[in-house]
Amino acid sequence: MPVETVDRLAGLLDAEAAQVSAEVDDFFSRLLPTTGDSRERLFEAMRHAAIGGGKRLRPLLTIAASKLFAISRERAIRVGCAIEAIHVYSLIHDDLPCMDDADLRRGKSSVHKAFGEAVAVLAGDSLHALSFEILAHPATHEDPFVRCELVLELAQAAGPNGMAGGQMMDLVAEGEQLDLPAITRLQQLKTGALIEYAVEAACILMKLPQEARTPYRGYARNIGLAFQIADDLIDHSGDAAAAGKPTRKDANAGKATFVSLTGEERARQQASFLVNQAVEHLSGHGEEADLLRAIARFAIERDH
Amino acid sequence: MPVETVDRLAGLLDAEAAQVSAEVDDFFSRLLPTTGDSRERLFEAMRHAAIGGGKRLRPLLTIAASKLFAISRERAIRVGCAIEAIHVYSLIHDDLPCMDDADLRRGKSSVHKAFGEAVAVLAGDSLHALSFEILAHPATHEDPFVRCELVLELAQAAGPNGMAGGQMMDLVAEGEQLDLPAITRLQQLKTGALIEYAVEAACILMKLPQEARTPYRGYARNIGLAFQIADDLIDHSGDAAAAGKPTRKDANAGKATFVSLTGEERARQQASFLVNQAVEHLSGHGEEADLLRAIARFAIERDH
Repeated sequence: MPVETVDRLAGLLDAEAAQVSAEVDDFFSRLLPTTGDSRERLFEAMRHAAIGGGKRLRPLLTIAASKLFAISRERAIRVGCAIEAIHVYSLIHDDLPCMDDADLRRGKSSVHKAFGEAVAVLAGDSLHALSFEILAHPATHEDPFVRCELVLELAQAAGPNGMAGGQMMDLVAEGEQLDLPAITRLQQLKTGALIEYAVEAACILMKLPQEARTPYRGYARNIGLAFQIADDLIDHSGDAAAAGKPTRKDANAGKATFVSLTGEERARQQASFLVNQAVEHLSGHGEEADLLRAIARFAIERDH
Repeated sequence: MPVETVDRLAGLLDAEAAQVSAEVDDFFSRLLPTTGDSRERLFEAMRHAAIGGGKRLRPLLTIAASKLFAISRERAIRVGCAIEAIHVYSLIHDDLPCMDDADLRRGKSSVHKAFGEAVAVLAGDSLHALSFEILAHPATHEDPFVRCELVLELAQAAGPNGMAGGQMMDLVAEGEQLDLPAITRLQQLKTGALIEYAVEAACILMKLPQEARTPYRGYARNIGLAFQIADDLIDHSGDAAAAGKPTRKDANAGKATFVSLTGEERARQQASFLVNQAVEHLSGHGEEADLLRAIARFAIERDH
């Protein structure tokens, strides 16, 4: 890629990521007001988890995919925030002592460390419900077919045949030596399903016929896996500051990862191959796909 | 009420409750099949919690309200099971050591006792997502407006402005002396919102205009509160066999309840008054409301 293209895409990503982060924070601030009653601590815990942290990769993907189809930004942000609410709920529950027992998340205290375990369980449950409330609301789209499809596919991506199922596979994986296909399947459910949904949501908003969605699904599948390998590489490197959370968890738990199975060098090559494949899927598009290209090329080098 | 009427309503309730229980078990058996992969234990935990227990009050209410409008039984059971999935998820999470720390539920081990805490968190989360998947699916209703309304109102009833918010109020209430209005508000969110939704769902399925829903909302609000007082009375009596779970939890935690505030006698009178009010709301209906009447009159005397 010419240097000027690299610079332009990196600049585009930085600007868009900053804007999306601000918009997501703003959305959650309005969604989670002061209650003035004894639920205040619950809302405080949700605000702690949902506002001011993370790279907002999922809303950014929805915004980026929306640019292909000229979907209104307000609509894309709303749907992106519903996805982020699911992501944040899953982080809160994953951090619980009975799960990953993590004290640190996105550079600050995990919710159960700051608010106690019971509040953390309820804050996750509350964000989970709010996510579907956002999508089913008429403000998301005037066509109820679109809203129903958004709800149905998010529920599938988040539930036992998606993210929660992948989390279960991850629990069972402790102490077992999974092979590469098994890890790929686990990660496809645990993190891939929601990342794929973030792109699919734009296709749903656009009422794109199923057969026209193939390239975007290909893009999303490739970057989902690339991001996971990148995550494994950061975890493997032991750089907790870059990760914004404790590292070497998988290695210490004796879990197989892409990196432990293939070695660092081959993992890097594989991630790079996946990114190239992802960008290939966008070859039918011009500049309107640049943000998707930038996410594929550069988001991999960051924590998310 | 004449003795023959009492007998007829009690018989009707017994027959319908048995049928609904069988149908709900059947629905969850089909929803939660063997996975053949490492998620098996997650699905096993969900089946443990969702199949073969409880009085299925919420699906029974949806079926009973559906009889007012001649809604198909298959449709009403499907929606009732979505509500029951939310209820079961909430029981799993409420039983966790960081919440009520209950070993026993519906006469068997709580999920975390049988499967461990991590699986219990995930089983609750999975049922939560499945509930919205059920409602958003075209099989629930051909009209997507109906499906969206079902999703939106269930998300509101289950989330931080409903059940989860009430659960938070309950956490905070420990050690505080709430007064009667505060306890009523807490219970209206914690258990009332979902019971009201079980009746509202039939109105949504029937596309009843808002103004025509008033009597059914009145009925649901009254029985929701009556059931909570009945629950408090069972808890107060200390009869763990009738409750199917440990009793005297609230008293031991120093929590105020309807019974602790008003005394047993006045609590019984209040429950009876609420039941009469509930039945009043059905005065415009004939025999088609008998199951709703029977639930109000007799379900109060059972564990649910």
